[in-house]
Formats: sequence, C-alpha cells, structure tokens
Amino acid sequence: MAGNIFGTIFTVTSFGESHGPAMGCVICGCPAGVPFSLESLRGELARRRPGGGGPATTRAEADEPEILSGVFEGRTLGTPIAIIVRNTSARSADYEELKDLYRPGHADWTWEAKYGFRDHRGGGRSSGRETLCRVAAGAVARALLAGYGVSIRAWTQAAAGIAAPVPGEAGFDPDEAARNPLRMPHAGAAARALAELEKLRASGDSAGGTVSCSVTGLPPGLGEPVFGKLDALLAAAMLSLGAAKGVEFGAGFVAASSRGSVQNDRPVPAANGSTAAPLPPGVPALGYGSNNAGGVLGGISNGMPLEFTVAFKPVPSISTGQQTVDRSGNVRELAIRGRHDVCVCPRAVPVVEAMTALVLADLLLRNRASRLDCLDWKARD
Amino acid sequence: MAGNIFGTIFTVTSFGESHGPAMGCVICGCPAGVPFSLESLRGELARRRPGGGGPATTRAEADEPEILSGVFEGRTLGTPIAIIVRNTSARSADYEELKDLYRPGHADWTWEAKYGFRDHRGGGRSSGRETLCRVAAGAVARALLAGYGVSIRAWTQAAAGIAAPVPGEAGFDPDEAARNPLRMPHAGAAARALAELEKLRASGDSAGGTVSCSVTGLPPGLGEPVFGKLDALLAAAMLSLGAAKGVEFGAGFVAASSRGSVQNDRPVPAANGSTAAPLPPGVPALGYGSNNAGGVLGGISNGMPLEFTVAFKPVPSISTGQQTVDRSGNVRELAIRGRHDVCVCPRAVPVVEAMTALVLADLLLRNRASRLDCLDWKARD
Amino acid sequence: MAGNIFGTIFTVTSFGESHGPAMGCVICGCPAGVPFSLESLRGELARRRPGGGGPATTRAEADEPEILSGVFEGRTLGTPIAIIVRNTSARSADYEELKDLYRPGHADWTWEAKYGFRDHRGGGRSSGRETLCRVAAGAVARALLAGYGVSIRAWTQAAAGIAAPVPGEAGFDPDEAARNPLRMPHAGAAARALAELEKLRASGDSAGGTVSCSVTGLPPGLGEPVFGKLDALLAAAMLSLGAAKGVEFGAGFVAASSRGSVQNDRPVPAANGSTAAPLPPGVPALGYGSNNAGGVLGGISNGMPLEFTVAFKPVPSISTGQQTVDRSGNVRELAIRGRHDVCVCPRAVPVVEAMTALVLADLLLRNRASRLDCLDWKARD
Amino acid sequence: MAGNIFGTIFTVTSFGESHGPAMGCVICGCPAGVPFSLESLRGELARRRPGGGGPATTRAEADEPEILSGVFEGRTLGTPIAIIVRNTSARSADYEELKDLYRPGHADWTWEAKYGFRDHRGGGRSSGRETLCRVAAGAVARALLAGYGVSIRAWTQAAAGIAAPVPGEAGFDPDEAARNPLRMPHAGAAARALAELEKLRASGDSAGGTVSCSVTGLPPGLGEPVFGKLDALLAAAMLSLGAAKGVEFGAGFVAASSRGSVQNDRPVPAANGSTAAPLPPGVPALGYGSNNAGGVLGGISNGMPLEFTVAFKPVPSISTGQQTVDRSGNVRELAIRGRHDVCVCPRAVPVVEAMTALVLADLLLRNRASRLDCLDWKARD
Repeated sequence: MAGNIFGTIFTVTSFGESHGPAMGCVICGCPAGVPFSLESLRGELARRRPGGGGPATTRAEADEPEILSGVFEGRTLGTPIAIIVRNTSARSADYEELKDLYRPGHADWTWEAKYGFRDHRGGGRSSGRETLCRVAAGAVARALLAGYGVSIRAWTQAAAGIAAPVPGEAGFDPDEAARNPLRMPHAGAAARALAELEKLRASGDSAGGTVSCSVTGLPPGLGEPVFGKLDALLAAAMLSLGAAKGVEFGAGFVAASSRGSVQNDRPVPAANGSTAAPLPPGVPALGYGSNNAGGVLGGISNGMPLEFTVAFKPVPSISTGQQTVDRSGNVRELAIRGRHDVCVCPRAVPVVEAMTALVLADLLLRNRASRLDCLDWKARD
Repeated sequence: MAGNIFGTIFTVTSFGESHGPAMGCVICGCPAGVPFSLESLRGELARRRPGGGGPATTRAEADEPEILSGVFEGRTLGTPIAIIVRNTSARSADYEELKDLYRPGHADWTWEAKYGFRDHRGGGRSSGRETLCRVAAGAVARALLAGYGVSIRAWTQAAAGIAAPVPGEAGFDPDEAARNPLRMPHAGAAARALAELEKLRASGDSAGGTVSCSVTGLPPGLGEPVFGKLDALLAAAMLSLGAAKGVEFGAGFVAASSRGSVQNDRPVPAANGSTAAPLPPGVPALGYGSNNAGGVLGGISNGMPLEFTVAFKPVPSISTGQQTVDRSGNVRELAIRGRHDVCVCPRAVPVVEAMTALVLADLLLRNRASRLDCLDWKARD
Repeated sequence: MAGNIFGTIFTVTSFGESHGPAMGCVICGCPAGVPFSLESLRGELARRRPGGGGPATTRAEADEPEILSGVFEGRTLGTPIAIIVRNTSARSADYEELKDLYRPGHADWTWEAKYGFRDHRGGGRSSGRETLCRVAAGAVARALLAGYGVSIRAWTQAAAGIAAPVPGEAGFDPDEAARNPLRMPHAGAAARALAELEKLRASGDSAGGTVSCSVTGLPPGLGEPVFGKLDALLAAAMLSLGAAKGVEFGAGFVAASSRGSVQNDRPVPAANGSTAAPLPPGVPALGYGSNNAGGVLGGISNGMPLEFTVAFKPVPSISTGQQTVDRSGNVRELAIRGRHDVCVCPRAVPVVEAMTALVLADLLLRNRASRLDCLDWKARD
Repeated sequence: MAGNIFGTIFTVTSFGESHGPAMGCVICGCPAGVPFSLESLRGELARRRPGGGGPATTRAEADEPEILSGVFEGRTLGTPIAIIVRNTSARSADYEELKDLYRPGHADWTWEAKYGFRDHRGGGRSSGRETLCRVAAGAVARALLAGYGVSIRAWTQAAAGIAAPVPGEAGFDPDEAARNPLRMPHAGAAARALAELEKLRASGDSAGGTVSCSVTGLPPGLGEPVFGKLDALLAAAMLSLGAAKGVEFGAGFVAASSRGSVQNDRPVPAANGSTAAPLPPGVPALGYGSNNAGGVLGGISNGMPLEFTVAFKPVPSISTGQQTVDRSGNVRELAIRGRHDVCVCPRAVPVVEAMTALVLADLLLRNRASRLDCLDWKARD
C-alpha cells in the first residue's frame, strides 16, 4: 500500500495540505460509462462538511468541488477523474504559535521525525481535512457500486461513553441516524450523548466513540486471499483514518472470549434469490443462520451483510491546558485555541462509508479475474 | 495489496495448498548482505509447528525448510529468496467426506463462490498451514530488523475467557510466555486457561482468544501517510490471518469511551539517548509520559513501544455435531474429525510476530526515501 | 505498470483530457526538502509549449501551471505534489466533425474499442497534450536529480530523413540543439531538415524522426533486475509516448549485426574519481574503453553515459485527403484541419528528458534499499 | 515494475541463481479453471533448453519442472502456481577463476556496484538461465490465452548479419522456423547464417541478431493508456531480457524516416467477422489497409497482428583473449572457457514468446475492468 495511493485497480491518489491551495484526489481505474455528476459529488461532500452544529468544529467552508477530468457528458470516460476543492477558509495565523510546539495526541513531532519538515498550519497534510479527498473519491466508487445494488450505511454507535442500540436490538433505527447531528441510530441515546459532549466541550475536554458500518447487497466472492482479504483491506482502510485505534468485524473482540459452538454461523439452504450475484456453475446458493462472521469468511464476502465497527480516540485538540515540549526541547504549557470537533464520530461516518466504497469498488473489479466464467474465455477443443 | 503478494519494497509472495506438494514463499527486496541461515529459519518454523502439546493439533510434520535461492555463503544476495517446505503428512483421506460439504466457520463455500473450484483437502489454500509461508518470510525480515535493534515479542493475552495480566500490571512476565504451551505471560493464568481448554476439547468445543504484541527499539518515523500508515499496514497484516476478527492499537476500544484529557500522551524531553535512531537536523529528541497511542501517532512510529492486540475467533473445527449444507443444497449433519487446535492463539503468536516483522522491514526500507539527509543528496550551489 | 500511474516509489499520477478543464499530475514519493519553485516548473513547461515556430503547431497556450500541494516555503514536504494547468485554448468546434470519424494513425477507434466512449475533442486523453503532465512531473524529478549531479540532455537526432551528427562525430554540438527550433545538434542539418519539413507542410504531409538522449553523472548501480532493469523501465517510458515506435540503447540495432569482439566494452582501471558515487566496500572503481552498451549492463547503470534513441513515427494529422471509416461503418474522405505539428521531434525532446528523469528518480530512491552500507544497519555482535 | 515481479493482475515472481539449488517462479492472479499440465510445461521448457545443436551451448540439463502448488486435478485453482526446476548441471568450478574478474559485456561489476556482493558462479542471478523462469510462467499465460484464440509466434529474423525474409516477402516460411536450429523462417538463410556462426565460433567470436514476433487473434482494446500501453509493456518485457538492446513495433525505425501519408494505416470497413472479440455497443468493426502500426494504436491493440522486433547484442562470452580489470583494479587478460551460445537468438525465441504471453495475459484480465458492458453492472432506475 503506497503512502498516498489506495487500491490496486480502482485507485485513489490523494493530495493536499489543510491550509495549502487545495485538497484533491485522482481516481484511476473507474470503468467508462458510469453516470457521475457534480451534484452527487456535492451531496457526498456536504455530509462531511463541518458547520452543521452538534459536536463539529464551527469552521465553515464551502468545500465546492471541481471535476477537472475524466467525466464527459455526465459519464466517466475510463480516464483518471481529478477532483479538487479549494481551501478558502485558511486562517493560518491561528496556528502560528504552534509552529514550534508539538501538540499532544497529534502527529506534529512524528511528521518531523519522518520528513524533517512540515507544514504546521492546521496540521498540514495530517489534518482531518484530508478525509475530504477520500469522500470525493468515495462518491465515484459509490456511483459504480450503485450499479451492483450495493448499499453502504454507517452511523455513530457510541460517543462519550453513551452507546446506541446495535442492529437487532430494540430501538435501533438507522433512519434516525440521518436526523440527529451525532448520526446515532437512536434519538434518546443521541440526546444523552450530545448533552455529555456539551459538558465536555464546556470543560475543555473531548470524547472518543465508535462508528459502525453495514453493507448490504454485496455479492459473495469479494476479497483476494491470502493478503488482500476483504477484512484485511477494510482494516487498513479504517486504520488509515487519523483517530482510529481499532476495528472489529462481526462479533469481533467478543468472539475472542466465546466458543466455537456459539460463534460458528450455520450454513442454511438459500431462500429464493437470497444470493444476488450469479454463482459459478455447480455452486449452490446458501445463506447463514447467524452473522457472527460479519459477512466475511476466509477473507471473502459470504453474501451476508458486511458488518464492522471502528474505534476512534477522543479528539486530541482540547482547550484545557496541557504540558508539551517545543522545538528547543523545553517543556511548554499549551492551550489549544481555534475551531475543533469535540467528538470525531459524526464526521467520520461519511468517511467510513467512503473508504468502504473504495475497498469494495476495487475488489469488485478485481474479482472479475477470478474465474473463467466471468471472462470471455472459451475452452479449446 | 495483491492477493498473494505482501509489501511494497520488501515483498513476500506466498504459495501452497495444505495438501499439495509444498508450501513456500519468495522474499524480494531484501538488501544484500544480511546474514541468514537455514538454522535460524528452522528455529522460527519450529515455534509455529504443531505437536508441542497444549491446545495444538497433534498433526506432526517435520516442516523441514529448503532455501532455493537468494542466499550465498551465509548472506543474502539482494536477489529473491525462495523457501519451500514439503507437505509430508498429507492424510487427504481424512477430508474426502468433506469434499461436497461446506464446514461452518470455514471458507469452503466462499472459496467456491469466488473461484468455482477448490482443493478441498485440509482447506487447501485457506488452511492455517499457509501461515508457515509467513513465518518463513518473517524469519528473513527478522534477520534484517536485527541490524536495527528492533525486537518483536507476542504472547497469548487471553484464551477461553481467561486473561493474563497486561504489560504494566502485576504478574505480567513475558519470559513465562516462552515456557508454557499457551504462550501466556503468567503461569497461573496459563494453567487455568489450559484446564478450561481441556474441558472444551473434551466437550467437542473450541475457544477464541487474543494475542498481544510489543515491539521495542523501533525508530521513530516509520509509516507512510496517508494510506500506508504503520497501524493501517499492521491492521491489514493481522486481519489477513484466517481467524482474526479485530485489532486494536494502544488503548484501542477503551480509548473510544474515554476523554482527550486522559488519552493524550504528553510529550516529555527525551531521556539521554532515549531515541535510538538519528533524527533529522533541527528536530529534538523527545519521549512521552504515557503510551495510550501504542507507539503510533498519525500513522508514524513515535519511538515508544509499538503495542497492539489481535482478537481471534474460536477454532471453527469442532467435533460436536453441526448442521450445514452440501453441494446439492441439502441440509447435512457434520461431525468434524481429524486433528485440530482447540485454540489458535499459541500458534498464532509466531505468526503475529512474523507479519509484524514483514510490515516493519518494508517500512524501514521505504522510510529511507522520506528525506534528503538519509540519501546521498547534495544541494547545488 | 498501472494505466495512469508511473513509478514505484517516486510515482506520477497523470490526468486530463486535451479539451477538458485542466491537465495535471500528482507526484508522490518525492523526499522532503527538495528545493522546488513555480519558476523552475514554468521553465520546463515552456520548453514543451507549442508556438515557438519551426515544425510545431501554432496553437498557443499560456500553459500556466499552479502548484496545489506538496511544496511549502520553497521546498517539497514529502507529501504529494499536485500540479495543474488549465486548458484555455480549447477550440472544441474544430473537432466536432471528427466526432464520428476515426482518424488514420490516431487512437480514436482503439479508444472506443476499449472504453466504448471517448472525449473526441482534440483527441481527449490520447492527445499529445497529455505529455504536459509528464513534463511537469519531470520538473520535480529533475530538481531531485540535481542534488546527485545527474544531467539529462536530449535532442532531435534526425527529422524528415535528415540526420545530424551523432556524439563523437565531427560537428555534433549539443549546445546548438538549444538554439534552433528543431533542437538538432548541428545548425546545417537543422536548416536542411526545416526546409524539408516546410515542403512537407506545404504538400499537406508530415515527417517522422528520432530523438536521442544522453545522461551523464549517473552513479553505477541503478536498475532493478530482473524485470525493473534500467533499460526496461526506460523502454516502457519511451514507448508510452504516443508516436514512439522503437527505442535502442547504445549500439542498439547495429549491435545485432555485429560481433562480440567488437561490441564488448573493455573494463579499464578508473581514472581518478571517475566514478561519482561511493561504491560498496571491496568493489573497485572502473571505467570502460568504449560505450557500445550505452551505459547499462545487465540492466544496471555502469557509470558510463546512458545513451539511447527513440524512433517517432510521422505526425498522423495530415491535411492531405485520406480515406477512413465513420461510426456507421461507411467509408469517408477526411481532410484534417486545425493546428498540428509537422514533426513531433522538437517537442518530444523535453518529454523524453522528463520521462528519463522520472525513471531515474525512482531508481535512485529504490537503489537505497539494495545493500546494507546504504542503510543504518548495524551487524549484531 | 518491481525488480523480480512482473505484471499487475497476472503476475510472475521469478527467483533463482544459475548455480544455486533451483530456478523457479510463482504465477499469481491466473483465474481458476484453466487446464494446465506438467506435459505442456515440459514442452515449453524443452524449446528453451540448450543442447539442441546449432549455435547453442552444449551444457545439457534435464530442466525437469515440478509444479508445487496452484494446480489441482489438471486445472488451475486461482491460487499461486509455483514451479521449480533444479539446477543439476552446476559445474561451478568452471567459474572459480572468474570470481575476482569482471567479464567484458557481462553484469559482473554492475551487479557488485549495486549489491556489493554476488554469486559469481555462472553469472548467478544475471545468467541467461533465469529466462527459464519466464518460459515456465509463460506456459501458464499461454494456457490462459489459448481460451481466447490468441496465437504467439516468434522467430530469428537475422543472425550474424544474415537476414531472413520478413513476413510478406517471398520465401518467408514460419513453419521452417520450427525445423532449423536457428529458428529462421527460411532454410537458405538459416544455412548461411549457421555457416557464418560456425566460423565465428571457430575464431572465438560471437554474433548478435534479431528476433521478430507476431501475435494473431488478439482482440482490440488491450493496453492501459497512458503508461501501461501495450507497446510500452512489451518494450519493458523485451528490454528486460539480458542481451536485448532495442525493440521496434511495426515499421519501427523505418517510420522515423518516412512520411505521414505513407505510414498512416487507412481504416477500412471490417470484413465479415474480422474482429474476433465483441465490441462495445455502437462501435463498428473495422480493419486497416496496412499494418505499419504493428497492431497497436495509442497503446491499444487494434485487431491487426501485433508485430515487433527485438535486437540482441552478440553473446559477450567469447573465447578470444580480452583485457579486463580484476577486483584489485589490475588489468588482466581473460579467455573465457566453458559452454556458451555463439548467438542468443534461437534460444531467445521461446523467451520472447513467453514474455509476450505474460504481457498479454495481464492486459486481457485488466481490460475486463475498462467498461461496464464487460461487467455485471446494471444501471439504477
């Protein structure tokens, strides 16, 4: 996995520093003919944008995207799709005093230890603003996935120690996640968590949380054993998000303290049409009596909903005074000002969806080369 | 990430089916001059081999490796290092009745859904035996890492619901992990877990567990933002292991319900020589007052111990009767015979170490290209 | 080699259609700290720009570049460097009548055969204008190479059947190549070739030619056997240019009809300091009595000047009437209007240099991982 | 392009030193279900093996291959296919005196300049014996290509200055190439060239030559612009062969001194069924009135025969005395003994075919992702 390029066939090259001229991405390997418009792109970016109230930063940017290439008359050309978004609200002065300080919980020092040099303004390349590139690229991936009937939906599962019901539990309401600013699938839990987050903000503190994601309509067979497994690629995608500290699939860490007789999902004959995609000749359709696996077996999608959860650490930018070290090696007191989220989860929701879309688009295209009945191959006589 | 090739500069190509002629790997991109011997390779493979008692399968194989290329007069040549291990104990007949059955918790059906065709004997390519290839490749990576003073140590943190003390807690003893068959860092916990595993084996069941890993001596600066982050690559490496269902770094999922003021690791002036590797000009050495981050900030190593934990599901091969579906789509009763681990953890320990070594070797080499003072570059006048 | 991404460590992602909003590229993997400015970028682009008289198209574009990321305070950050150039002179109407025609010698039909859909305006993505992206990326590569003392110089060796003297022959004057619009290293040859090209233009025809390139200051050891050989990567780079039909290194095709006793370059003791770069311990400096190899042996640079020649076919856009086929499969008469080069060579010169720079920058960085004395590796006691 | 891994989807990892334990390769990304047998593999290897008389070395090896993985019940599994061939005839002593000498025309010194260390026996990894790995991998590629009706045929076009007729010229007889040891498509030319080669052998000298290749049945649309063009990848493949010094496609270097009105291949309405593969909706079948392009336009196959020629330098191992330099930097006289080809061409023929097959197999699989009508994509309502 290259530093700034993600994927194998369907790839994304991401670029941009938080306070440089622009953020952007180049999507290569998208097939020709996929309907794609500036409107759909704007819609995806709007879901990520701060300024919507709740726990997010008040930094408001237009985030108006521009498509520079790869789309012609409303459809993709098969050529690279370049998208840029100008950085219009770059109040660099806010960051001048941070130039020679290493903020706790941030990548300031590690970035310098690696490159010897950094753009200190707003975190530069290590800023959360970089996720904008991922959401833009994810919009293209989603346009491709739409033609396969794949649906990706993420939500805030827990924030500030307040958890919403999980799928299958009473009260879980995915539509509610679109209504409250925390994107939690339960109105009451969202209200309690928002209240808790307000308290933290007032006290100069911040909170962590978890984001869960469910993908339906995914055909079985996606994933490239043994290293490019579906869950391996998703794990890389999720841990590539700045504040992510863990990921689990299906029963996850709970499975680790459980028993085989409990965890094994029992194969069952498929209900009619339960498997969307065509199977190879001689392979029966089937389903599973449970989904502890979270939709992936041996690194390959099994036709059940793909389910995973990502753990995000608390936002490190807190206004409470903290001790740190400066460029001269002296201890310094630091009180971070500026505009910062109190909890990253609601804004992480569209980013988790975008990264999931990127992984799935790539695997869908790669899967075409797995067996001859997906190709035009004809046996010699 | 390709299906069977791992890494960018230091790469491993893995091959082999469980009951085919041989397993093996080809390591490309290892620098010339690294001391490497058949003896060290044998030592690594022995740690993974079953037959050592405890919860492991009783299938005993010699696992005698052969180095086919890339090593000359005791040192690596800079050319591909091919290693093979013959599959000598292939009791294929054990698996004949499984040919048309899809075992619960195994990749039998997903593999067929993808490829339309599989080697059913012992799981074929999806067998845990494939991890032998990783351990062999990891032995080369460890020989390279030795020259940097990097030390990788994994252990069974929990099994069958019994947890050992974590590092920093009273009783944690990493040396003990080398003494008991469960590889747990606490004799009492190991004894209790082994007793519990025996009960599960007797009742035809199995258990999950967690494996933790700690890396010391790692220089700061490793990791390739934004997609090739240290934790992202490790997450992919860990989730590429068959039974892995989750991974967390540092405080992990605990961080998700915590606060910024608690989680932020405070930078402190470096103790003398605390940072092993040379830092770029103008960048001060520093340390951290705590290690909730688990040694990685912004996807780059920060000089603290790298710490993470992997969740493994219970071994799916249980002798208790289970219902499943056969190739004709009929429901069938299945009682798995043959030789199987009850808990994957102790044998996963050297595999987790090997995959960690592979990620780190690759990132160490890639990191050389990050800045000019690591190169022979000379500014023009 | 991906479709639109070139390189392994030092990579370029190219994007843009000739008449879309912009052309551009993203350079990933450039080390931090390389001095780079908009001025140097402009200078490189100016060398490629049409409008300079001679055989080039009269389409004049400002080709004003913008650096969107990756450069801060005059130096590279180690992050992706995105560069765009707006397409300001997009007279799409010129191409409307070509929408349903397949021009002879152009990629119109093959592009449709592959993608089912194309941007027909000015050749879209298959336009020679895409080489602008390569020159922009090459400018970054050259800034890196400058710190190694590597010098890359290309020129038009032959055009319209008129050949200039080759290096070593009387009259060869590389400085002259910077003075005449054909970029030929001999004023008289250039004058004769220009006269011939004018005749061809007048008669509605066009000409092919060759471009030669010489690289000095290259350290020995570059190239990644067995597939990523120096000459293999350069060959791919050169044949990725639209009109290129062949490439040869050193004696090239002449070597094929020669004898070993003639072709073998005899190693000789190195003149003092003749080898720029430090050699591994125990390896003597040496030179060669001749350079039939063109500076590359076994796919690895040997310290002699790297020398190769690229063959370019005649520009296919000729104003003479030609028969072709339209979208309905009918035969049609075509007379191409618009602004076109008569011979691609002079404008290919900076592109050949740019592609060479990209190959060399990548190989220089990759070569750091070849042996331990280039790394911080310390043998264990 | 990695050093020892070739391809993007259909990849080959090559390994082995000439006098080490074994040569081999691992093919990843071959779809499941392709018929493949040890017999077909043996057949391909036999064509490359020395000992057949004519200009080849008299070193006779069994070159008996073994398939270690990836093939089950006569068909590929979709998993990595590992093939090894033991090095049985390793007369290392022949090379002992060369340990500290740098042979003219060989990679001895460049290899040391890069790696600081080499296996000097028989050239080690830089030996022509490495091409065995390519032929083995090519056998798998050819088995895949067979299902598409693609036919690859190479021959010696010229050797020792004697040229055979080219396709279209009187006397060109491709079947003759299978009959004479030089693999020339004309019996008389072969006889004259063989006589010339005998003279050179007797005088302790060697000769160069050219190998041409023609591919028929190739569907249009193969090639990944702008960097992964069909001709760019083939050029890299050909120049990755040890003795190759140049490559040209179609009219090649002749085109460089020609005119557009001569070189442009005129599109013509397709003869019935002239285009093998299905074209996208709305794209007409067509042919070309000539094939100066050599079957590739804009880097994409155009349905015409793919035609190219590779220039090989004379074999550098000549028994005539030569001056060179030794490890101490002293001038030494060298007379190479041992078994060596006088002209590499006849043995290069199957290698050129194999590399061509590898490029085409990869591009065929990659091409599936170019447009939606090759995928299962369904537009949303």
